[in-house]
Amino acid sequence: LNDRATVRRLPQRGAYDAETIHAILDAGFLAHVGFCVEGQPFVIPTLYGRVREAGDGPDKLCLHGSAASRMLRELSSGVSVCVTVTHVDGIVLARSAFHHSMNYRSVVAFGTARKIEDVQGKAEALRVISDHLIAGRWDDVRNPTAKELKATSVLEFTIEDASAKIRTGQPADDEEDYALPVWAGVVPLHLQAAAPLKDPRLDGDIPLPSYVRSFHTNGNGHHGTEHIK
Amino acid sequence: LNDRATVRRLPQRGAYDAETIHAILDAGFLAHVGFCVEGQPFVIPTLYGRVREAGDGPDKLCLHGSAASRMLRELSSGVSVCVTVTHVDGIVLARSAFHHSMNYRSVVAFGTARKIEDVQGKAEALRVISDHLIAGRWDDVRNPTAKELKATSVLEFTIEDASAKIRTGQPADDEEDYALPVWAGVVPLHLQAAAPLKDPRLDGDIPLPSYVRSFHTNGNGHHGTEHIK
Repeated sequence: LNDRATVRRLPQRGAYDAETIHAILDAGFLAHVGFCVEGQPFVIPTLYGRVREAGDGPDKLCLHGSAASRMLRELSSGVSVCVTVTHVDGIVLARSAFHHSMNYRSVVAFGTARKIEDVQGKAEALRVISDHLIAGRWDDVRNPTAKELKATSVLEFTIEDASAKIRTGQPADDEEDYALPVWAGVVPLHLQAAAPLKDPRLDGDIPLPSYVRSFHTNGNGHHGTEHIK
Repeated sequence: LNDRATVRRLPQRGAYDAETIHAILDAGFLAHVGFCVEGQPFVIPTLYGRVREAGDGPDKLCLHGSAASRMLRELSSGVSVCVTVTHVDGIVLARSAFHHSMNYRSVVAFGTARKIEDVQGKAEALRVISDHLIAGRWDDVRNPTAKELKATSVLEFTIEDASAKIRTGQPADDEEDYALPVWAGVVPLHLQAAAPLKDPRLDGDIPLPSYVRSFHTNGNGHHGTEHIK
């Protein structure tokens, strides 16, 4: 299984450099985290943040433990985990059914997850997840108490190997199909933010913070605005 | 593991009725498919369609095999699979770090996947996936040849049990935190379609089909427009 990260089918869509992988991870905030319990697979949607440290250590993600709580309960030590992040960029409408496709960017990362036990480490990991999701928020809110940290599960996921897959652009039809009278093209898709809805219980004097406004203004903030075309 | 589909944490967010589960599955088209090979989990983004049949049989999904080709190669008979579909509906900004959350709808389905071997069955399954993604397209395009069907892998996934999780609405802060001078609310998110981009090689006389236009006009077609509030 040491070739687990090799993109076997359509290898021209595979990309492996760290810059590409980081860009895809940084453009998202929701991962699908997979693990096995006695041969039974589980796939759980989970918020994550990428640890951005100086140095040459392995890449790490912090995973919010609420969704992964089953894994935490089942297994207390390091667990083999697959973390997949996918951005849907469009539907590719070809002239033949066979060449229909999706434009997307995805990373499939393999590694080991372990529970963060110490309270300080948990607080730092939660900050990583918060900053990744919406930079500026952490410093604006009430920070977690020791009791809250105790009640929170956070995982540290060390990436051992990872691969990226990217598809962009128009359909690639068979040459003879270009003569067919069939509309062909791409319907672009992206995750879009709408105007923030303030909590009805909010004091009317409290303004919308700029980091929330910019999240909205930019469509979805740093998430997927830089589509690779 | 016969309680694998039970939502253990925050059980008030769990919903199990078939109508809710079908609505979430029908609002999406991309699943994250998990399986295990010798204890190693894999999570692969995969297009799917829900089989809509009369009768009381088990629910079935068709999975496009391109992404699942590794699984198909590794294992030829029925495989334990977890299929997870998640719609991100918003970011929930609470007054405390602890109560930050995400609005979402997700289904986690457990069951068995098997390869569809016969050519006719493959064609039907591909049509299910196509109709699910963009109704009307299949009848408009060149249908697959026998050779193309042979080259295509499609899986039939029989759902043995499934659960849904939904979070909606504003943050639920601790009562004493409502007095904090912190902006709180929700940033709604949804998958948005932009104007279709026609293939530069398209004959200019071929109009945009209405089913593509309505996919665009409706934001993202049938996908997530009916947010549960």
